[in-house]
Amino acid sequence: MSSDPHAQGRSLRIASLLRESFDRDRGALRERWFELLRFPSVSSEPRHASECLRCAEWLSSELRDIGFSADVQATPGKPLVLAERPSDSPNAPTVLFYGHYDVQPVDPLELWRQPNPFEPVERGDRVYARGAQDDKGQFFFPLQALRALIAAGVPLPRLKIVLEGEEECGSHGIAVFLAAHPEWFPADLLVVCDTGMAADGRPAVVAGLRGIVQLNATLVGANHDLHSGQHGGVAPNAALGMARMLATLHDAEGHIAVEGFLDGLTDPSDAEREAACLLPFDASVYTAETGAAPVGGERGVPVQLRLGFRPTIEVNGLHGGYGGPGQKTIIPARAEAKLSARICPGQDPTACLDAIERHLRRHCPVGLSLSIDRREGALPGFRLPIDAPAMRLAREILDTMDPRGSVVLWEGASIPIVSSLRTVSGAQPLLVGFGREADLIHAPNESYSWEQARMAYLFAGQLFARLAQRV
Amino acid sequence: MSSDPHAQGRSLRIASLLRESFDRDRGALRERWFELLRFPSVSSEPRHASECLRCAEWLSSELRDIGFSADVQATPGKPLVLAERPSDSPNAPTVLFYGHYDVQPVDPLELWRQPNPFEPVERGDRVYARGAQDDKGQFFFPLQALRALIAAGVPLPRLKIVLEGEEECGSHGIAVFLAAHPEWFPADLLVVCDTGMAADGRPAVVAGLRGIVQLNATLVGANHDLHSGQHGGVAPNAALGMARMLATLHDAEGHIAVEGFLDGLTDPSDAEREAACLLPFDASVYTAETGAAPVGGERGVPVQLRLGFRPTIEVNGLHGGYGGPGQKTIIPARAEAKLSARICPGQDPTACLDAIERHLRRHCPVGLSLSIDRREGALPGFRLPIDAPAMRLAREILDTMDPRGSVVLWEGASIPIVSSLRTVSGAQPLLVGFGREADLIHAPNESYSWEQARMAYLFAGQLFARLAQRV
Repeated sequence: MSSDPHAQGRSLRIASLLRESFDRDRGALRERWFELLRFPSVSSEPRHASECLRCAEWLSSELRDIGFSADVQATPGKPLVLAERPSDSPNAPTVLFYGHYDVQPVDPLELWRQPNPFEPVERGDRVYARGAQDDKGQFFFPLQALRALIAAGVPLPRLKIVLEGEEECGSHGIAVFLAAHPEWFPADLLVVCDTGMAADGRPAVVAGLRGIVQLNATLVGANHDLHSGQHGGVAPNAALGMARMLATLHDAEGHIAVEGFLDGLTDPSDAEREAACLLPFDASVYTAETGAAPVGGERGVPVQLRLGFRPTIEVNGLHGGYGGPGQKTIIPARAEAKLSARICPGQDPTACLDAIERHLRRHCPVGLSLSIDRREGALPGFRLPIDAPAMRLAREILDTMDPRGSVVLWEGASIPIVSSLRTVSGAQPLLVGFGREADLIHAPNESYSWEQARMAYLFAGQLFARLAQRV
Repeated sequence: MSSDPHAQGRSLRIASLLRESFDRDRGALRERWFELLRFPSVSSEPRHASECLRCAEWLSSELRDIGFSADVQATPGKPLVLAERPSDSPNAPTVLFYGHYDVQPVDPLELWRQPNPFEPVERGDRVYARGAQDDKGQFFFPLQALRALIAAGVPLPRLKIVLEGEEECGSHGIAVFLAAHPEWFPADLLVVCDTGMAADGRPAVVAGLRGIVQLNATLVGANHDLHSGQHGGVAPNAALGMARMLATLHDAEGHIAVEGFLDGLTDPSDAEREAACLLPFDASVYTAETGAAPVGGERGVPVQLRLGFRPTIEVNGLHGGYGGPGQKTIIPARAEAKLSARICPGQDPTACLDAIERHLRRHCPVGLSLSIDRREGALPGFRLPIDAPAMRLAREILDTMDPRGSVVLWEGASIPIVSSLRTVSGAQPLLVGFGREADLIHAPNESYSWEQARMAYLFAGQLFARLAQRV
């Protein structure tokens, strides 16, 4: 909390204003949120294309109603909604806010407890609908907090809003738009509400994401599968060779054994290590949830550091030879592995791909020929300084929302669009979301609770208002 | 060649009789062979069941016509043809002759150069039809040599003929019959004409076959595929774990590293080693034929010994995780491997399975659970003494058929029915066949040449006749 008593008073008034408006306007919020949820904006299904456009048009109109200049921008894919509002305070930063209005398909429909996943149903404190959380709920309530602040005349920073319609299927349209119109995006801070809280429900700032590189490796021996009796002991076996080659990627302790792959890797600072290890990790909860003990990756490194600060090389798929019922006594002529590596700050994506490719070529078993297909979309990881002003501000606000305070998370996953927006905008990302495991995003019976919605509303409103106070 | 001048003269007369009858009767031989080939006796296709029965009845009638008492015996699968003829010479051995009248399916039909693979077509010296070689051609001409010998009054040993109808799909019916009627089978010698000549076309005796054991191994980590970002470095990866586990089966030099697996393995004698290494092996021919260099198996062991005298453990299939187009960034929850091992004389099949299972359990990666499914049909390997009288006799005859002489082959494959017939009959197997790579068995445009047919006829006729002279 700021030590300036005037600023303190202002902050408390804003928090109170937001709490009151949320409670007062809940009927109207529900009505508009449900309107948004009724658009079946499934980006991956061509038959929903016109609903995606209608959803974008609705959002553009909603943003104009809130107080923005807004319009729908065509892309080679689904349209973008872009909105802008000038700053009310001179010298306030420019804030770029990102969300996505597209949702995952609803299959399998029969597992939903309601007949239509696009007709929201309330049960207890929760609203069930496809997109209720991801990402319609997560971005809708921050925008509604802006409505309340603008209506109350609270000064705000310069705001740019971008809502895309293809996050669930590769973000192609926005990527093309970013390349064609980089001049629209410059900002100081990139606010993304598409992440989650800590497993124990404490509000969280995400201070890092891993990057990703992917490649496929194919080994070929003979030009057809050979009889394992007539050729066993003579012909090279592509499936066995693949196993032997992949087994060299890690040492016996689970450490990556690929020369050059770890070059440049930045170790966590003491502060990061300490903050990460403060997060609760309960192995028995993990096992109950996944069916597996948390014993993958490197021995002797705490789980929290393995996920957030250590790179991985995983086999995503491994296929060679016969896979049908019964037996087939062949020496497989061909085997394929799909590999992905999560990389961390300091590691260069291209250098990582080079290192893996060099390693595989060096360990390609005799008699087999190796071909490597590097996949597009290589991304570096990033970590944000946990003492950066925006992050300290976010945590100050979040700390007021839970008696246990807030936490910092370093996520193991990658959010490609955050990397691209960060590059084009030059903005520091700030990732705060209010998702929970129980929300079942991407699955049947997705939901978001009014409690989460309220947190998103209170957090974002306070954040925007207080950013305008900064000079 | 026997040193007894009377025996020598008899042998020459028999060879000459056989040559003459083959040339004289070629029209009739063609007619009856083609009748046999016209039965679409595809054992794996239920719609051909009645043709299998008609084929067995035709063979039974043919054998009666040749001079046997013969009939068709029902089994739980396709019927057997059993035929018998008493010995013409006291003290002559009992010879059990095995063949199979069922054939492989003809798909893909469009790759055949003739419209109907069951209507034989002659081109040059070759007859094209499904089963022309495997095994209708290979067993038909030995039986026709018996017709000529019986007609000419040449004394023969006691003969038992068994022709089965399910060799191409697991030999289930004959296995049940063997268990129910072991009393029919006792014999001194088991003659099987279902193997091939040396790669360079020299006639060959097969003096050994490897056995086989098979098992499937499954590794399971989580109860569903996990996100490789959210779980990478934490959850155990079943596909990677499978690769690491399988990589322990062999050492860096390709030697099997499974403790106890090699227990009891009999090394080849000096004579066997010498005979095996006399066989030509041309790596460039092998690579031209298969597309692979012959560099599988153990370093520093000649190919001929690797195939005939050394066991193998092969991965026949390896599957885990995503195998479709593009990428899927998952940590596979499950991976499966199908394994088969070719084993050699001295190795006990059950002990080999025990050793592999023990090894896999010892090397099961942490966090993954291993289940093992041992498959039925474990068989020991066998090797026949190369100085046994029957083998010496066979080679004496074969030596006269090629100016380069004959060779001994130790095959890497397993012929399960030979093992079972050997056990039930108590007979020493003698495996001589006249197959060539060019015959394309199991493939479109299967064929057998008149030259091969003549060799089979001359060899088998001389063998049977000379066995009657032995006391």
